Amino acid sequence: MIADMPMGEKALIKRIRRAVGARRGVVAGIGDDCAVLRVPLRHEVLVTTDFSLEGTHFRREWHPADSIGHRCLARGLSDIAAMGGIPLAVFLSLALPRNLPQKWVGEFMRGMLRLAEEFGVSLAGGDTAESPSGVLADIVVVGSAPKGKAIRRSGARVGDGIYVTGVLGGAAAALDLLYAGRKLSARDSPRHFYPEPRVRVGKYLREKKIATAMIDISDGLSTDLAHICEESGVGAEVNEGMIPRAEFRGYGGLVDMKFALHGGEDYELLFTVARGKKLPERIGGIAITKIGRITRGKRVTIVDGRGKRRKLYPQGWEHFKG
Amino acid sequence: MIADMPMGEKALIKRIRRAVGARRGVVAGIGDDCAVLRVPLRHEVLVTTDFSLEGTHFRREWHPADSIGHRCLARGLSDIAAMGGIPLAVFLSLALPRNLPQKWVGEFMRGMLRLAEEFGVSLAGGDTAESPSGVLADIVVVGSAPKGKAIRRSGARVGDGIYVTGVLGGAAAALDLLYAGRKLSARDSPRHFYPEPRVRVGKYLREKKIATAMIDISDGLSTDLAHICEESGVGAEVNEGMIPRAEFRGYGGLVDMKFALHGGEDYELLFTVARGKKLPERIGGIAITKIGRITRGKRVTIVDGRGKRRKLYPQGWEHFKG
Repeated sequence: MIADMPMGEKALIKRIRRAVGARRGVVAGIGDDCAVLRVPLRHEVLVTTDFSLEGTHFRREWHPADSIGHRCLARGLSDIAAMGGIPLAVFLSLALPRNLPQKWVGEFMRGMLRLAEEFGVSLAGGDTAESPSGVLADIVVVGSAPKGKAIRRSGARVGDGIYVTGVLGGAAAALDLLYAGRKLSARDSPRHFYPEPRVRVGKYLREKKIATAMIDISDGLSTDLAHICEESGVGAEVNEGMIPRAEFRGYGGLVDMKFALHGGEDYELLFTVARGKKLPERIGGIAITKIGRITRGKRVTIVDGRGKRRKLYPQGWEHFKG
Repeated sequence: MIADMPMGEKALIKRIRRAVGARRGVVAGIGDDCAVLRVPLRHEVLVTTDFSLEGTHFRREWHPADSIGHRCLARGLSDIAAMGGIPLAVFLSLALPRNLPQKWVGEFMRGMLRLAEEFGVSLAGGDTAESPSGVLADIVVVGSAPKGKAIRRSGARVGDGIYVTGVLGGAAAALDLLYAGRKLSARDSPRHFYPEPRVRVGKYLREKKIATAMIDISDGLSTDLAHICEESGVGAEVNEGMIPRAEFRGYGGLVDMKFALHGGEDYELLFTVARGKKLPERIGGIAITKIGRITRGKRVTIVDGRGKRRKLYPQGWEHFKG
């Protein structure tokens, strides 16, 4: 717990303590051996943990500190969104190199706490340590959903439609340009620097009993669709022409299809819906697009504009190769 | 979540998946965006996170891999114990250097899962990544306690007795010898290599309404007592002669008082008890020793055998200086 740290880190803790208010569900936060959370009646608890490591998930040369703080938390909130859950509390374990400027840490915390604030969730604890090399953040988000109602990956059935929120490939296209040595700012690609976890959409899909299975697109459509198929014991057929691609200035139009198919970190939702179930074209302002359907067997195929069918291999997303 | 990792780590995940059984409270574990936990009716949720970093908290040259796995988890379970809680599920975020032998990872997991098994708690998720330098583990333990009954640090009142479980200083004395270049094995200091979190004692103290405030001794008696005093707004007086010191072969008798006062990682419990409240000499086989009392003001003093009084400064515990 944060209270058990070396004296040298007291300034950071004081800063965090000041930033943290008592909020929904948090009975005791920083300053005890454990945080104490109150979960709504007849709810189950959702827990997700995500490492964000310098060099693997971000680079200080490429990303402003507040973007890094935002992105660390967005990964966890997106996992809660993918279950249709409500986020309750955040825990941050942060290892920092000795020579890191306090200003950087302040900006990192500002980016994280601004996003937490937006979703009404508080920082309820964590741990800090000195890092031997680079910034290491492990984010835990605790949320809840009514008993038995969290949307799993395993609920897709043959005949279900396959849907995505928003547009895909924007975050990966930005990353590609960063690799190529281009300087990018948040204005060029807000989705890369400040991704918006789809918590409200996920909650709506759960409350309206729309989604049979759901996952967030953190590793890329091809990989995350494979996860749904594997857990549900089904196959899938995707129509290439129906995949909503991001527009991106740097490319002078829509991003390349490879980014939409395999690029990670869009944090959109991928979900399945029973045949005949009605759903709106937009949820909370976010476009909902049908991209295919669930099939028998275990094969995931993609059909191009000329009706040509090929296997869609999960190519994963390697984040940064550095 | 563990399911979202690069393919190269699949072997580790399969190993973990096999090792994990469905257990108390875990509805969904590895293989979804979040773990889903069921918390006992009218219980609150306890959450604690602890970083264990190579070089700071352990060294591969000093500690067998299974001891490191054990120690990582013991830190979290001990935080649950300090609230009088019941552990429900464990989450492990693990970053490993590229060249680490699979055998080491297997032994690390074995040590962790053996301790989890002992406390009937399962590994319900986590994350893995490649570490730029050394082994980094972040452990999250989720537990529960009946609503409003978790034992806080803030409940100590003037006149309460101050108590500790077990004996103190053994883990730090072992560390001191390791620093001095001595080879030690688990037989020399089981408390250092395989500390036993006092979950059963903590639960007993909560159920019998014995403890008014509690903390685990992870940073050393002087520091952790200061935490209780700070959170409760009280002072304390400790009798040096009453502090139960560990016996340790390497020292040919009782460990030096400095280790018992300031040495961390014993994971014993420090708690306060209202005047006149009866409590047993042992709980579940663990000795309970009164070492002082809570006083007015904010000063923490220690009285030696000749009645001489001095201030007890929280000296913290620096773990490894390397």
